Amino acid sequence: MLYKKELEEAHFRISPYIHRTEVLQSQLINAIAGCEVFFKCENFQRMGAFKMRGACNAILQLTEEERAQGVITHSSGNMAQAVSLAARSLGVKAYIVMPSNAPDVKKAAVRDYGGEVTECIPTIEEREKATQRIIDRTGASFIHPSNDLQVILGQATAAKELLIDYTEIDTVLAPVGGGGLLAGTALACMHRAVDCMGGEPMEADDAYRSLMSGKIEKNDTAETIADGLRTHLGHINFPIIQEHVKEIIRVEENEIIHAMRLIWERMKIIIEPSCAVPFAAVLKEPTKFKDRKVGIIITGGNVDLSKLPF
Amino acid sequence: MLYKKELEEAHFRISPYIHRTEVLQSQLINAIAGCEVFFKCENFQRMGAFKMRGACNAILQLTEEERAQGVITHSSGNMAQAVSLAARSLGVKAYIVMPSNAPDVKKAAVRDYGGEVTECIPTIEEREKATQRIIDRTGASFIHPSNDLQVILGQATAAKELLIDYTEIDTVLAPVGGGGLLAGTALACMHRAVDCMGGEPMEADDAYRSLMSGKIEKNDTAETIADGLRTHLGHINFPIIQEHVKEIIRVEENEIIHAMRLIWERMKIIIEPSCAVPFAAVLKEPTKFKDRKVGIIITGGNVDLSKLPF
Repeated sequence: MLYKKELEEAHFRISPYIHRTEVLQSQLINAIAGCEVFFKCENFQRMGAFKMRGACNAILQLTEEERAQGVITHSSGNMAQAVSLAARSLGVKAYIVMPSNAPDVKKAAVRDYGGEVTECIPTIEEREKATQRIIDRTGASFIHPSNDLQVILGQATAAKELLIDYTEIDTVLAPVGGGGLLAGTALACMHRAVDCMGGEPMEADDAYRSLMSGKIEKNDTAETIADGLRTHLGHINFPIIQEHVKEIIRVEENEIIHAMRLIWERMKIIIEPSCAVPFAAVLKEPTKFKDRKVGIIITGGNVDLSKLPF
Repeated sequence: MLYKKELEEAHFRISPYIHRTEVLQSQLINAIAGCEVFFKCENFQRMGAFKMRGACNAILQLTEEERAQGVITHSSGNMAQAVSLAARSLGVKAYIVMPSNAPDVKKAAVRDYGGEVTECIPTIEEREKATQRIIDRTGASFIHPSNDLQVILGQATAAKELLIDYTEIDTVLAPVGGGGLLAGTALACMHRAVDCMGGEPMEADDAYRSLMSGKIEKNDTAETIADGLRTHLGHINFPIIQEHVKEIIRVEENEIIHAMRLIWERMKIIIEPSCAVPFAAVLKEPTKFKDRKVGIIITGGNVDLSKLPF
């Protein structure tokens, strides 16, 4: 599982449709963390999150015939917006299945990006049924948010850019939810012999437990503020994570909120709780990172400003 | 009043002590504004605001003997932190006079940057008395936050960098409070034959009225959320503004809050209310900016996250 050439090709393929996002640093943050931190700002990515990369790559890999029939995903989060905007950028129709209880603002955002929203009863079963009905009717291609090799390769391009722009980095951390970003980050790191580590909420530590047990574990509950990280790994990304991720560090909810606030206040950027998780891991285990050059993927900035945890 | 060579020298002088800050753009913001907007992100500047530039330049222009006796300013805002950090970076002692009712968090920030805080009764008279007592005792050099040519030239470097990095820009807007930033921005624009305009809150429109009357006007009240813009112009920056600023556009409080929220939500950056004012001006008068390339100085990002207006 090297995928070196495939990653190069994915990066070349999606470049016209994505931003090469900024990397920010702060002397104060470095002093607090005891290491040099490089924040790869995917909150500045188009539609506000790294998911744009994977969505673009997956759609670009479809044939002309497949594209003509559209694409479909089910999501209440960033992937719904990413598939909608990526599809529109490529002249492809996007069908998005969303739970009926998803916030109106998220449904509106998907529609703004041109996605056709189908609401369903908010259970996994109903979501999958609704998706299948649309596929049967339209022939649309399903794009999984994380367990899809083309999506993984797309997400990998964030770490790839970071490691090209800052060759001194020796460790990269990404949060782990469904596993697409962490698997992609691990591939990009492996190609440059850089350590890759994951950050995960203690309250949804399925990936940590999966690495321990050697099989995909799930969460009975996932009561974490890091709402992008509640899902479990898949059979495509798990083996990559097993092979190439050095360690997953778990953090508590108060540690996530503290790290998020530090980044807001010191870096002056708006980030989602999910991407405060790797920085919280660095703060939690300072001896592991002392004097290292640490890259962190800031995954996105789509937060509801009227519902801040501080 | 050309100051072209002086500005070049100021920029060269302060470069080791400041960040060359990022410039961010957003397709969504451009679509909303009807023009192409370039945000010069001084919220990413050291200590979180452009004032670092002017403070550095003013201190660097002092003689060795003057530096040995320290510097002093009175401020409850960003200039207090800027002078503290600039002085520390240059090995100079900083005395900061702050009103006793300034928030504890601001006093703590000044002390964190090494400034020696002297509290005074919160009136202009007492503030000036306290400042004079320290000058009499220490011989410290007074640095005015806005009405000082070296401070103005330092602030000018933000627009200078912006216009070097993006030669297509044809208009630059800055907010106007004490007038240091707007005067500096006007000089940098004039050197490149670019239009310079100001944005000002209707609730503190002293600069607008000063341009109308031809003399420095003051505000009887200044009940604006843009707390950095409540002060009036000075005799050094006013003539520069008179000569080189094309127009000052006034905006209402709700327009400021709307513009601020748009930037937070769409750009994913944390900005002070003061620097939402020029963007609010662009949104208010779209015909003036239609299809233009508009630079906006984002002045700073030091906000209290627990007191947001939305």
